[in-house]
Amino acid sequence: MMTIGIDIGGTNIKYGLVDDAGHVSHRGNLVTADYHTIPGLVSDLHNRLADVLAAFPVRGIGIGAPNANYHTGNIEHAANLQWTGIVPVAQPFSETFGVPCALTNDANAAALGEMKFGMARGMNDFIVITLGTGVGSGIVSNGQLVAGHDGFAGELGHCVIIRGGRLHHRTGLRGTLESYASATGVVETAREMMENDHAGSGLRSVPLSELTSRKIFEAAQRGDKLATEVFKFTGQVLGEALAIFVHFSSPEAIIFFGGLAHAGDLLMKPVREAMEANLLQNFKGKVKLLQSSLPEADAAILGAASLV
Amino acid sequence: MMTIGIDIGGTNIKYGLVDDAGHVSHRGNLVTADYHTIPGLVSDLHNRLADVLAAFPVRGIGIGAPNANYHTGNIEHAANLQWTGIVPVAQPFSETFGVPCALTNDANAAALGEMKFGMARGMNDFIVITLGTGVGSGIVSNGQLVAGHDGFAGELGHCVIIRGGRLHHRTGLRGTLESYASATGVVETAREMMENDHAGSGLRSVPLSELTSRKIFEAAQRGDKLATEVFKFTGQVLGEALAIFVHFSSPEAIIFFGGLAHAGDLLMKPVREAMEANLLQNFKGKVKLLQSSLPEADAAILGAASLV
Repeated sequence: MMTIGIDIGGTNIKYGLVDDAGHVSHRGNLVTADYHTIPGLVSDLHNRLADVLAAFPVRGIGIGAPNANYHTGNIEHAANLQWTGIVPVAQPFSETFGVPCALTNDANAAALGEMKFGMARGMNDFIVITLGTGVGSGIVSNGQLVAGHDGFAGELGHCVIIRGGRLHHRTGLRGTLESYASATGVVETAREMMENDHAGSGLRSVPLSELTSRKIFEAAQRGDKLATEVFKFTGQVLGEALAIFVHFSSPEAIIFFGGLAHAGDLLMKPVREAMEANLLQNFKGKVKLLQSSLPEADAAILGAASLV
Repeated sequence: MMTIGIDIGGTNIKYGLVDDAGHVSHRGNLVTADYHTIPGLVSDLHNRLADVLAAFPVRGIGIGAPNANYHTGNIEHAANLQWTGIVPVAQPFSETFGVPCALTNDANAAALGEMKFGMARGMNDFIVITLGTGVGSGIVSNGQLVAGHDGFAGELGHCVIIRGGRLHHRTGLRGTLESYASATGVVETAREMMENDHAGSGLRSVPLSELTSRKIFEAAQRGDKLATEVFKFTGQVLGEALAIFVHFSSPEAIIFFGGLAHAGDLLMKPVREAMEANLLQNFKGKVKLLQSSLPEADAAILGAASLV
């Protein structure tokens, strides 16, 4: 049987039909800003999928979206979406399509995708960390998503790792994981290091406004010392954070997804060292650090579909 | 039906019969050092309980013990017990008594006790933190104990909260929660403050070797400024740690158990302030901080019995 997977982002809404082996077909893409209300989106999608729904039995709809509440099926106060306040989503989808609908945030969906189709197959206890513009997380314990009392658990990017550290502008918190271990954080670290350290670096020829984590990564690959230090520091902060998470839920693996996850050993070597150095003896050498194997283009749709 | 609850500690082994309402009867106490092997303990306990077992139907045995592995039923490498290496416990109990036996560490048992008989009745997502000589924790998510991949999850006392902070001698880790928010940590903080701050304090008349967290608490209650600062700092570190834990599992409540939990507002006011200051907007004002209501003398037995 097939499942509809929908990934609602600030810019695009991607959808597709997912079979039990994790193959995505009948993909489509909508522009988020075109839809002023959820019922408008639901009815448009239902029309677009009419032929598909007639041809295939569908067991349900899974949706990944920012600020999605797993318990209520609503999107609640999402800063990056035009739907303000608390917006019912699962209910209108379920009513119009006549099948169950569940939603959760994108990082939780990623975790379920890894469990059903990716690196976490057969695992009951693991954490997925998305290292992109921000740092997201999805946690599975006892084979179940850790959703928390209010449906909003798994905000590991907002844990303070360095007391009184760098200000994270959107949240007002200081020293959170996201302010260091995101693409944005990597650029900020490079900027700080260039300010405080007067050693030469190829990065100095890049205008600050054009500095990206990719350019820093490429410089580090060419052996640029400062760029290498940036990844070393980033990895250290991330590794210290992971040690905390391991003491919490003792996962079999931590799986990385997103742009920075491709930095390989440049990031992962310091991550592992810092994590191991901050673990109780009991946990040392036990936790696998893995990179997601899901195809980047389909991961969000696969994850959303895994909800059902 | 009744359950046997057993609490294995470094000094004493306490046991009792627990009914469905959480009343403990037929209590007993053994000296841990008297038992060189688990089978010896099992057979002695079976003899002592022979009359009880003949009179009451018993559904199972629950055991709380240090370094207990929930998944395997073994005690593994417990530093404070004379049984070295990996020692089967659930199996010999189960075989001799003819009923199921489960074991977990004392803080996990406390969490299950709170869920069945205490402040967490009706809750599916909460954390119990024991503030004693050390800092222990038991985490419940989706109504289930977070045991982790290896059965050893929930070591929140060993999370690093202050990078490069105070050395925790037993583990070799620096800046962990336990090195600040335990009875031992409170004494250490007072010692440091007296060394670095030359203000007068009633605590200065107490010989350092006789300084206890209780004496510091009593001084604070009398209005001693330095003693009050000790609790303020302790609460701040604990509150910062709680914010991390809330971002992880979004619990409905955090329940405190053990000696320091009785310090009341002196500790809890700074705890709440620091926690709230370090939370995402989404979580602010939502998490209940509660004190355990289980009778101190029975809590460990009740918790252990709740395992079955």
